[in-house]
Amino acid sequence: MRYKCIISYDGTNYMGFQIQPNCDTVEERLEQAIKKMLDTDVKVVASGRTDRLVHALGQVIHFDIDKKLTPNNIKRGLNSFLPKDIHVNEVEIVDEDFHARFSAKSKEYHYFINTGEYNPIIRNYMPNITNLDVSLMEDAIKLFIGTHDFKGFASSQIDKRKDTIKTIYEAKIIKYDDKLEFIFIGSGFLKYQVRKMMGLLVEIGFKKETKDKIIKIFETKDPKLSHKILGGEGLYLYKVNY
Amino acid sequence: MRYKCIISYDGTNYMGFQIQPNCDTVEERLEQAIKKMLDTDVKVVASGRTDRLVHALGQVIHFDIDKKLTPNNIKRGLNSFLPKDIHVNEVEIVDEDFHARFSAKSKEYHYFINTGEYNPIIRNYMPNITNLDVSLMEDAIKLFIGTHDFKGFASSQIDKRKDTIKTIYEAKIIKYDDKLEFIFIGSGFLKYQVRKMMGLLVEIGFKKETKDKIIKIFETKDPKLSHKILGGEGLYLYKVNY
Repeated sequence: MRYKCIISYDGTNYMGFQIQPNCDTVEERLEQAIKKMLDTDVKVVASGRTDRLVHALGQVIHFDIDKKLTPNNIKRGLNSFLPKDIHVNEVEIVDEDFHARFSAKSKEYHYFINTGEYNPIIRNYMPNITNLDVSLMEDAIKLFIGTHDFKGFASSQIDKRKDTIKTIYEAKIIKYDDKLEFIFIGSGFLKYQVRKMMGLLVEIGFKKETKDKIIKIFETKDPKLSHKILGGEGLYLYKVNY
Repeated sequence: MRYKCIISYDGTNYMGFQIQPNCDTVEERLEQAIKKMLDTDVKVVASGRTDRLVHALGQVIHFDIDKKLTPNNIKRGLNSFLPKDIHVNEVEIVDEDFHARFSAKSKEYHYFINTGEYNPIIRNYMPNITNLDVSLMEDAIKLFIGTHDFKGFASSQIDKRKDTIKTIYEAKIIKYDDKLEFIFIGSGFLKYQVRKMMGLLVEIGFKKETKDKIIKIFETKDPKLSHKILGGEGLYLYKVNY
């Protein structure tokens, strides 16, 4: 049976999603929990990786097991073996042709900035950045919408064979009294892409750059031009659509 | 010179405010930061203690130092030596007759409950309690308002000489989609008082108790009757008024 799970996690204490030697990762914790529950080695497939410190409210994974368990039993079992900073929200039995990564049609990322006084309560959940001209950022963020080659906003180490042409369907800012919420919905996102787009938006908000820089990076496709990467602690994988 | 500071902290990793041997406490961190900044031993006086896990957004402290430094230099200096989960928000030079504890006229505590799905992001900041009948709680919370002997809502270990008659000026619930915010403004609060009042309110919300239990505890003054104590992680010292 193939199970699809929607999971949330606090990325603060993890070296990201993907298993790496000698690191505490979300993927390893998930596979350990399945092993404790079913006494069998199971490989978890996620919609994609998230970096160190990055949070998830709607990450999606799938895995295959021989036993047929009800979704509710899978949910309760996994949550009883997972640490408190990882949680299974929903479990569903899916067809064998469902794939957490390849079946994903779009993804939604949110980025939060605390624009007020530094607040220790939220230090791991939104960076503190003040004196931003939000109207300049609102004007600039629209340029990300559409189909573009995002190579210039990706990590300079990404695989050269990787398709860097992606579509952003929605990119907007929601303003609150003392925080900003940035929403990006797109066909897919490259490594560091949202954090680099955010880095440039913040430079535009500081009036150190103008929105023309976005167009320049699209044209040159040069990742060195998008040098400012905002911290992972403000980024949330919010939803994966299938 | 006497300095008054308004400070905030994330209580997650501390054994409360007050210095205790072999424990990491907020008070010790503050005194260490002052020592690092001024190379002198200074005793910090707070408006009151907060328990293990309890947070503060508006705790007030005072301390005396010989040097005359501007409030802004004190703020910047302390924040550079404090860990990231403790922050000085405001500093003011005050008269010698100001006392963080004895001059306090009222205190405001907030308690947050996550009433939706368990969310790992906020696990240390609001407990997850579902299926509460909020209208019963709203009806009951009003009974706390006024001047009462709160001995029955205090820790059974409190000093017998302590004045347990306190006045609550305001007690109310603000409802959000997936959380509840409880606000208590009072002349002062006894050890465990807010968390025990919250414990009983939750029992009332679960229909395990009725609001008559509040009156019974006021009458009997028996701390054993208020046996349910909600976790410290949902409690915030919000403001101290002088």
